[in-house]
Amino acid sequence: MKLTILGCYSATPRAFTHPTAQLLEIKNHFFLIDCGEGTQVQLRKHKLKFSRINHIFISHLHGDHFFGLPGLISTFRLLGREKGLHVYGPKGIKESITLLLKLGDSWTNYPLIFHELSSNTAEMILENDKVSVTTIPLDHRVYANGFLFREKPNERTLNVAATTKHGIDKSQFSNIKKGKDIILEDGNTIPNEDLTLDPPPPKSYAFCSDTAYNERLVPQISEVDVLYHEATFLESEAHLCKKTKHSTAKQAAQIAKKAKVGQLILGHYSTRYKSIEPFGEEAEHIFKNVELADDGKCFEF
Amino acid sequence: MKLTILGCYSATPRAFTHPTAQLLEIKNHFFLIDCGEGTQVQLRKHKLKFSRINHIFISHLHGDHFFGLPGLISTFRLLGREKGLHVYGPKGIKESITLLLKLGDSWTNYPLIFHELSSNTAEMILENDKVSVTTIPLDHRVYANGFLFREKPNERTLNVAATTKHGIDKSQFSNIKKGKDIILEDGNTIPNEDLTLDPPPPKSYAFCSDTAYNERLVPQISEVDVLYHEATFLESEAHLCKKTKHSTAKQAAQIAKKAKVGQLILGHYSTRYKSIEPFGEEAEHIFKNVELADDGKCFEF
Repeated sequence: MKLTILGCYSATPRAFTHPTAQLLEIKNHFFLIDCGEGTQVQLRKHKLKFSRINHIFISHLHGDHFFGLPGLISTFRLLGREKGLHVYGPKGIKESITLLLKLGDSWTNYPLIFHELSSNTAEMILENDKVSVTTIPLDHRVYANGFLFREKPNERTLNVAATTKHGIDKSQFSNIKKGKDIILEDGNTIPNEDLTLDPPPPKSYAFCSDTAYNERLVPQISEVDVLYHEATFLESEAHLCKKTKHSTAKQAAQIAKKAKVGQLILGHYSTRYKSIEPFGEEAEHIFKNVELADDGKCFEF
Repeated sequence: MKLTILGCYSATPRAFTHPTAQLLEIKNHFFLIDCGEGTQVQLRKHKLKFSRINHIFISHLHGDHFFGLPGLISTFRLLGREKGLHVYGPKGIKESITLLLKLGDSWTNYPLIFHELSSNTAEMILENDKVSVTTIPLDHRVYANGFLFREKPNERTLNVAATTKHGIDKSQFSNIKKGKDIILEDGNTIPNEDLTLDPPPPKSYAFCSDTAYNERLVPQISEVDVLYHEATFLESEAHLCKKTKHSTAKQAAQIAKKAKVGQLILGHYSTRYKSIEPFGEEAEHIFKNVELADDGKCFEF
């Protein structure tokens, strides 16, 4: 998986800080997560081939997470897109986008398929041979979901040394890759697992923004490889969490620790702070493997 | 008047070209004209105190002219705005903005006053002691208006030399500025016009974007000081004007010439062109005083 942070600051976009948007690449499939104002420009700046995005996931309908969506949808039309675009987001997203396109008399010439979400329990919203995507109900001022991306198990890879040892001809390699056992000329059968290597374990990524600290999240994101958890505030502003339904860096780390995730990425910083380094420092008291999201930063895992 | 071009390229926003938005300053009043995606960031980049914007004029509901409006309205809320904001635009603008704010449960805590436009004839939509604003019905694929800004006549200014000549005390200056005649101690009356100078003539600015070439515009913008007229295409793409209801640089110049305006500013360039210089060259064959808008450029007149 490759994750590119297009924007990871809360509230208002500014000259050098962008509202939430992330591009997740899984086996050549592009998934866009949230789409704050200016996301399409961020995609261009980072030279990401955004025509490859077929699925967009919107966590909630606050502007800093979706006001870039109407523009991106319109740009796809102007670029001559023909293939369908799937948009997953809270109930109301279809009505609002449809109204904007109607007012501009600029309906898309490609299929625009909305998947409106309203469940308060986790639901699988996308599954194909590469990946499954499940909602993570969050605890925010408005209806909000995170998203859990799980790779499907990878195929076993050819053990070339083993095929040589057994004198197996290359013409059998495609059968081995398909999982078949091989019958040798002497009649012996070599089981597939003796001719292949364990595949790399499937990866998982959980996106949780925006949300108050809520341990209800823990079971669902247990042991994911990477967790992005919002950290709007530092401890000095912890008193603002209750009203705004946001988290501190420390709270994000507590969730990461309880869920025993591999790595924690922090983001959604309030723009009141001059530096984001203290977010990492406060989180690392609780959980060791912390990374700070920043606009344009890439993570590969 | 001071005009700052925040964006003047058509269709999709890109890393270094921005969709339509302009800030017009008239006697310390800020008027925002159109609001493409990213306008609030452009306002910040150019260090314009956008809290001073009290009136926003939206020409039409294509995304490149108004998809930045929901974000700007939300940002005003986050910045603690209290004074009212007037938004002028085509019918439907209220419904769309209201829906977006409702979905995000983030209604403004300041008065948001919509003035929806649907007339196909010019109408005065704002008048105060500084300025009047009148719609200019345009000829586009969707309902669209330009806007004509006319300063109110300026007050006459004090002629200090004349007051000295007549031995008038400074305590009378405020009366003179108010337009009063002055009675001297010897009983003679000095008429106000002998004690004041003619004010600078009131300026006018016409914004016309987006529109096909249409001579219907000419009488209304006759002899304005400055005309901004869209020029989406060069002559080589003139065949695209009919279907898209846009203009070429040459057509914009023809309108400027027929209306005998003082200066023509071109903009709304199609992003297909690598350079905007040819727009100026093609227009100057028809009309001499041509300027090219560009993002961040200022015009004072």
